[in-house]
Amino acid sequence: MNPAPLSGLYAPSLALVTDLYQLTMAYGYWQQGMHDREAVFHLYFRKAPFQGGYAVAAGLALAVDWLENLRFSDDDLAYLGGLRGSKGTPLFPPDFLAYLRDLKFTCDVDAVPEGTAVFGNEPLMRIQGPLLQAQLLETALLTLVNFQTLIATKAARIREAAGPHDQILEFGLRRAQGFDGGLGASRAAYLGGADATSNVLAGQRYGLPVRGTHAHSWVMSFANEEEAFTAYAQAFPDDSVFLVDTYDTLDGVRHAIEVAKKMRADGHELGGIRLDSGDLAYLSRGARELLDAAGFEKVRIVASNDLEENLITSLKQQGARIDTWGVGTQLVTAYNQAALGGVYKLAALRTADGTGWDFTIKLSEQIAKTSIPGILQVRRYLDDHGRPRADMLYNTAAPLPERLVLVDPNDATRRRPVRPGAPFRELLEPVFRQGRRVLDLPTLAESRALAQREVASLDPAVRRFLNPHTYPVGLELGLYDYRTELILAKRPQRPA
Amino acid sequence: MNPAPLSGLYAPSLALVTDLYQLTMAYGYWQQGMHDREAVFHLYFRKAPFQGGYAVAAGLALAVDWLENLRFSDDDLAYLGGLRGSKGTPLFPPDFLAYLRDLKFTCDVDAVPEGTAVFGNEPLMRIQGPLLQAQLLETALLTLVNFQTLIATKAARIREAAGPHDQILEFGLRRAQGFDGGLGASRAAYLGGADATSNVLAGQRYGLPVRGTHAHSWVMSFANEEEAFTAYAQAFPDDSVFLVDTYDTLDGVRHAIEVAKKMRADGHELGGIRLDSGDLAYLSRGARELLDAAGFEKVRIVASNDLEENLITSLKQQGARIDTWGVGTQLVTAYNQAALGGVYKLAALRTADGTGWDFTIKLSEQIAKTSIPGILQVRRYLDDHGRPRADMLYNTAAPLPERLVLVDPNDATRRRPVRPGAPFRELLEPVFRQGRRVLDLPTLAESRALAQREVASLDPAVRRFLNPHTYPVGLELGLYDYRTELILAKRPQRPA
Repeated sequence: MNPAPLSGLYAPSLALVTDLYQLTMAYGYWQQGMHDREAVFHLYFRKAPFQGGYAVAAGLALAVDWLENLRFSDDDLAYLGGLRGSKGTPLFPPDFLAYLRDLKFTCDVDAVPEGTAVFGNEPLMRIQGPLLQAQLLETALLTLVNFQTLIATKAARIREAAGPHDQILEFGLRRAQGFDGGLGASRAAYLGGADATSNVLAGQRYGLPVRGTHAHSWVMSFANEEEAFTAYAQAFPDDSVFLVDTYDTLDGVRHAIEVAKKMRADGHELGGIRLDSGDLAYLSRGARELLDAAGFEKVRIVASNDLEENLITSLKQQGARIDTWGVGTQLVTAYNQAALGGVYKLAALRTADGTGWDFTIKLSEQIAKTSIPGILQVRRYLDDHGRPRADMLYNTAAPLPERLVLVDPNDATRRRPVRPGAPFRELLEPVFRQGRRVLDLPTLAESRALAQREVASLDPAVRRFLNPHTYPVGLELGLYDYRTELILAKRPQRPA
Repeated sequence: MNPAPLSGLYAPSLALVTDLYQLTMAYGYWQQGMHDREAVFHLYFRKAPFQGGYAVAAGLALAVDWLENLRFSDDDLAYLGGLRGSKGTPLFPPDFLAYLRDLKFTCDVDAVPEGTAVFGNEPLMRIQGPLLQAQLLETALLTLVNFQTLIATKAARIREAAGPHDQILEFGLRRAQGFDGGLGASRAAYLGGADATSNVLAGQRYGLPVRGTHAHSWVMSFANEEEAFTAYAQAFPDDSVFLVDTYDTLDGVRHAIEVAKKMRADGHELGGIRLDSGDLAYLSRGARELLDAAGFEKVRIVASNDLEENLITSLKQQGARIDTWGVGTQLVTAYNQAALGGVYKLAALRTADGTGWDFTIKLSEQIAKTSIPGILQVRRYLDDHGRPRADMLYNTAAPLPERLVLVDPNDATRRRPVRPGAPFRELLEPVFRQGRRVLDLPTLAESRALAQREVASLDPAVRRFLNPHTYPVGLELGLYDYRTELILAKRPQRPA
């Protein structure tokens, strides 16, 4: 093994998965004696990805794992000690590095369970603890939660398009953004609704079902398709899917049928054929006709080639006869929106005397980008069937009035009173208390099942791809008014 | 440390970074006794990314590292041994797993050096060796080379827009596709032209310069901007860049100037200010005026906020006064094209008697997606100033005629004869011979310098963002004619 391997998958440096400014700020807070001031940060996105109406929260289990393993190793500290400023002097003094060496994670963390349907402005995580620590977590938590949530949401959309009965196979590793980009995408794709992955490492690491067919090169390695299919069936008599488009797709189907007949004579059944190019609607119908006419009604038709939710919807509308959707690039990179713009914003800071809270706000030219102060919780009101009706963000550090009103944070004239006694649940659950984990994490399969229930509980208008209905997320009126006051106090009032 | 960590960055399983079908095909070849048949694969992309005219080859050093560490561990084999087919029987028999356990990498690898300007259809890597081995490498090599080349190319375009003198800082980790997506992106961004990264792990692992400023939360943690800036300057008196847009940008600049005056009185100079929102053209000009009027002509203006090459070009055209471009999401995810569609195609296979070669081809409805047979090399012809004029793909296993003619693979009527005696260089260099590395890899800084020379050597028309000129890449006429013959032989000739 190399002493300093280059590829990213191995050799941990957990604490250094961060932006330098987290460490420079940490030093600044420590120097100012502010490092243990209690702070509250929220991690949230502003807009659901893919111009969609919702997102599927994901990444918590990875974040928990990262938090539980977080420490500065001697190598990390040696590296930081070697960094120099513009004048050639060390960026970080030795006593600060010693402080980092002994740092123990002691924050409280609350989070929305993986698989939950979530909307813009809702905290997916709330971190409360010493300012220095809570700040240091920003980058890694964002990286994990942004990417996992993005891909889980993409997978949920592809599941929406494919319907509940078709199979979805995730095939994307070769086009993924690095080894871990592929590994993380396979995990999140499964969580969001894919049935299996081609990624063997993801199968091993996360217990995902793994699937595969064969490549064009397999066919090209034999004198002709019949020989290639026959050889593959010898290796996997009950688990063969033949790729039929190396030379001519419908001829390929005919060759697959000839081999499938011999397999049947030997007591085996061909599992499927795969189409990887050409007009998938036309070719799948042609393939289905040929297979059915030859008595192979149960042979599945797998299709791949830059598939995503809109293309799958269109193929279904065209009457494509596809049973299994192989999705790669578009899913694992979330190709049409390759990043979720999650942010991590300071929302409360203990007063210097330690008795109260200063609630903090970041302004912006756009009200949609102005942060929300407080120690927030998300309350989801449900209808009589347990389906989500509206979500309310409120400040847990302020008393709630008896009569609750939700205000649209982007349009103060849109308000809805809360029906007294309306059932609700609160989305943020305790995960860590003073650095100790207090939550048993669900299995990935359980989170996947939750995601399917959660998405199914949303109104179809919210799930729709084109111009989805906006699910109501409001600020509790007291929080709304308080935030408005803070904005007016912080924004310079220039004469017109 | 957890026994089975969830996040992707650590715990190696190098051989399992692959698609299942590579392993099922490996078993099939082994069962057929074809595993040691000598094969040649090429790794190439068909079209330069971002509708651009070129790409910057990258990823070779990561691929070399992966190849040198490749082996199936006992855990890997136990996992593979536990996989079951649809009838519940093991997918892979024990004697095949024993074969994998003892497998030694013995391939020849030739590759284009990192930093080289490359074009569609040109092999970036050529793998020659036992069929089973060469096939097994496909997924990981594609993952590494696709992503590195994609990001290095994006960085080169951003460098093109920023010009040679501005600084480019890569800030993208929080929006990256996983930890390794961020780590790999930082490496490739530097290779392609970025000056530094905020990613501390990338700094440690690859020796990249690291840079950072501070976040809005820093400002929000103090009673006002002056206190926040003063405190930061205490921590980093000679390395401070103040973020000025937490509340009101130009007021923030004024506060920065007040603090910079006190710093100067103490013998220190403010390094810069950072704008992260709003109209960057307008605000940077306003900030420059305020700074210059106060005698801070050397304070740099750093700007960030979803920047990419087209936005940077536009800001420059508008007279923005920005010295340093902080680029994040758009660079590290290659947001407007989040994947490079590189492929790995079988091109030659030893005849069964071991004396000759069968050259292989994969057809497609589109000629652009039909593969190129042979054992290919890329010859780059140069003009009298050493600048690239045209590239020729040829089959090293066939004699070259004396009079060379290049044929556009997508339009047979576009041909150019090669001027006799024209200078050239050959792009693919030996990297491994029979599994042993024969090339000393350049440092990352050397590859970065090569990338800058390579891009600068291209005609501006090829580098242009909008409708770039197509750099000529042709097949040697003999190869072109041979490929046409193969296509005609493989494609069914149906009557019209």
